[in-house]
Amino acid sequence: MSDDSDIPPGGETWVASDAFRDEEGQIGALWLERLKAFILGRRSEDMALVMAPLHIADVGDVLEQLEAQERIALVRMLGERFDFSALTEVDESIRLEIMEALPNAEIARAMAELDNDDAVFLLEDLEKADRDEILSALPAFERLALKRSLDFPEDSAGRRMQTDFIAIPPFWTVGQAIDYLRADQDLPDEFYQLYVVDAAYKVLGTLPLDKFLRAKRATRIEAIMNTGQVLVDALEDQEEAARSFERYDLVEVGVVDENGRLVGVLTIDDIVDVIHEEADEDIKLLAGVGDEEVSDTTLDTVKSRMPWLSVNLVAAVLVSFVIGLFNATIEQMVALAVLMPIVASMGGNAGTQTMTVTVRALAMRELEGGRLRRLIRREMVVGVANGVIFAIFIGVVTAFRYGSMALGAVIGSAMVINMIVAGTFGILIPVTLDRLRADPAIASAVFVTTITDIIGFFAFLGIAGLWFGLF
Amino acid sequence: MSDDSDIPPGGETWVASDAFRDEEGQIGALWLERLKAFILGRRSEDMALVMAPLHIADVGDVLEQLEAQERIALVRMLGERFDFSALTEVDESIRLEIMEALPNAEIARAMAELDNDDAVFLLEDLEKADRDEILSALPAFERLALKRSLDFPEDSAGRRMQTDFIAIPPFWTVGQAIDYLRADQDLPDEFYQLYVVDAAYKVLGTLPLDKFLRAKRATRIEAIMNTGQVLVDALEDQEEAARSFERYDLVEVGVVDENGRLVGVLTIDDIVDVIHEEADEDIKLLAGVGDEEVSDTTLDTVKSRMPWLSVNLVAAVLVSFVIGLFNATIEQMVALAVLMPIVASMGGNAGTQTMTVTVRALAMRELEGGRLRRLIRREMVVGVANGVIFAIFIGVVTAFRYGSMALGAVIGSAMVINMIVAGTFGILIPVTLDRLRADPAIASAVFVTTITDIIGFFAFLGIAGLWFGLF
Repeated sequence: MSDDSDIPPGGETWVASDAFRDEEGQIGALWLERLKAFILGRRSEDMALVMAPLHIADVGDVLEQLEAQERIALVRMLGERFDFSALTEVDESIRLEIMEALPNAEIARAMAELDNDDAVFLLEDLEKADRDEILSALPAFERLALKRSLDFPEDSAGRRMQTDFIAIPPFWTVGQAIDYLRADQDLPDEFYQLYVVDAAYKVLGTLPLDKFLRAKRATRIEAIMNTGQVLVDALEDQEEAARSFERYDLVEVGVVDENGRLVGVLTIDDIVDVIHEEADEDIKLLAGVGDEEVSDTTLDTVKSRMPWLSVNLVAAVLVSFVIGLFNATIEQMVALAVLMPIVASMGGNAGTQTMTVTVRALAMRELEGGRLRRLIRREMVVGVANGVIFAIFIGVVTAFRYGSMALGAVIGSAMVINMIVAGTFGILIPVTLDRLRADPAIASAVFVTTITDIIGFFAFLGIAGLWFGLF
Repeated sequence: MSDDSDIPPGGETWVASDAFRDEEGQIGALWLERLKAFILGRRSEDMALVMAPLHIADVGDVLEQLEAQERIALVRMLGERFDFSALTEVDESIRLEIMEALPNAEIARAMAELDNDDAVFLLEDLEKADRDEILSALPAFERLALKRSLDFPEDSAGRRMQTDFIAIPPFWTVGQAIDYLRADQDLPDEFYQLYVVDAAYKVLGTLPLDKFLRAKRATRIEAIMNTGQVLVDALEDQEEAARSFERYDLVEVGVVDENGRLVGVLTIDDIVDVIHEEADEDIKLLAGVGDEEVSDTTLDTVKSRMPWLSVNLVAAVLVSFVIGLFNATIEQMVALAVLMPIVASMGGNAGTQTMTVTVRALAMRELEGGRLRRLIRREMVVGVANGVIFAIFIGVVTAFRYGSMALGAVIGSAMVINMIVAGTFGILIPVTLDRLRADPAIASAVFVTTITDIIGFFAFLGIAGLWFGLF
């Protein structure tokens, strides 16, 4: 036995054969098996050795791949070597599960090491009692900074901001500023611009690093700083802040309090998360699944889907009562029951299409001024056009299937009516919800399909009843 | 008359009363009216005066608010004062409309001024003949750079990249590098890191500006550069590149060709656009509206919605044939026709919920390894749980409505079956599409709802037929 006996058997070939990520970019199955064996065998040092080179994002991915008890064992075994910022990279349910399994004292120790924005992110979802206990165990300076951030409303810029930033006075020269940056050890980890402030911390200008670097040492800061910079109010919603980032292609923006004092900065990596969350939220609201994640428990999932399914059940029962009005009609002509779902289904789909375009346009603020009128006009014409095209198609098919031109004409007319209704309500429902300051994505789909179902069945059965004199 | 007669009447009060953006953040109605009056009155100088202070993102918003002929008139009247990068901020249909209305010689002049990535973005959607004419009118250096970018596949990192970047040798000192940055006038507009390369332009390391700034002048670059940097292959899909950005919180990444030579860089602002497009695409694919924009013409919209509606029509006709199998059953008991859409509708909704969670999880690469099995297990249980809950509810309602316990039991059992089917196919369809390397968002919805419709009607009518002996 050589003296590297603390390397696991086969350790030499490890990197070559058991790559961390396979060709698909997923975590290698062999790599993961080995890690799990280390955890199970309580081989802390071996485990720490393979975890050490990983980026926090990769640590997050590993945590998500493990079973609940393995995750907690891993964090415990790593101890002080575990970088808590990895928890910002995992699903909320996993994050809470790990945080709740650890003693508050240990969390407090870890929080003191983290960037302010990461610490806030980890603390904000904890129970108030746990949070207070952790805060009180922190050094005064960190405690106050975290408390101030946590006092801002959820999803505000103040909550997301990083409170470390570099502020310099306007009368310094570039040389003085560079010397300051070289000397000061207590700077933020990453920064993209300097903030030029007066004595009251009001922002006079900003100086991106690339511009700063290209200036001569003797140049005064105020001569080269950018004025007219975009600033974000700490109380502003993070989605609003994200829109500023996108609109003006920013990488970092200053956050000011109600007195206009610089209190923190938002960086693009936070904003990328916000943009992602926002789009994700829209998709999930449209399908009625709330803020679900794949790692949610079964019980949470059942609960989160109940409201939407309940609303849909009520709507479906309502629709069925509309059909019930035509009991006698259907009794005389069973073909109507066979054909009626076609009209409803086409209306539902066309309505969902229009609604989706409208919801996205509202989210991107693309329906200002004249554009809404133009969209309504377009959707009406599209409804008529697609209505007529598909009416002819289904009319012909039906006429052949049942050998009745009349039945073809009835289903065709119902189709045209329902497609126009679909286009109209596909716009009106999300726009109305938006005007009422509700999120247009929520519940739009169930409203739209309920209306197209009702109109679809009513128009088809009604026209048929009149045409064939079945009332 | 004073000598500032070229200021429009009322020019002094302009800024105060007719703000560019109103309180909602939309472009002020009065501001826009005034601009339109200038365009109509051919008052180029007045128009240029009000447009001059706008950021290109705001110019883009203004263009989107104008009518087609106003837009082109504005661009023509501004002439050389129009910054073509504003066209990267508008919808594709508006961009093409403006580009097509302008002479190619004028576009060529403008392209020479733009950043390489913006020029590529504007040129890539033009007709090949127009593009070649514009390219041939460009100076050789710009032409070659643009051609190289355009040779990379659509949506690849090479297409999106900016070809201006700062490369320095490893043996320079920090001082030499700073002097070079201060002296060289031909640097990219914005940059966040320096690339340390060998003579063959292979990347040896990267140096973020914040780290660079804090180093002493005498330090050698190779002593402080980051190694193990993330690089992107020029042929890689831009969505893959976006995932690297997100995973590792990058702001800039080097792009290398097949020989590992540095050929360009991707910056976070491009990636933010990609992230947005990708989420937008998923939402729209789920609703079957392709890559539609609110500014598309009516004809384009009709065309873009046809495929999905056609597929849905075929599916609906198929479903109607399934119902047709139970003609005799319905004839004997019309209540079945009244109730059957409830079962189908609940299945469709539950299936869409599961499918949406699955599609998003696939898009975020969250279904690696054991997580897929866990998700399937969860969705089956959720299907059973929600199926039973809603089965009891609708069973009781139906039993009371028709005074028949048996009918309540029939609809309840059909509901449980359909909810389990919904959960199963809500996962299996997108996962299968993903395995077949198709985008799981596309067409999943129509497959899922067709299956839940068929099973819903079949189960309900079939169980009823057996139970009441109607066959």
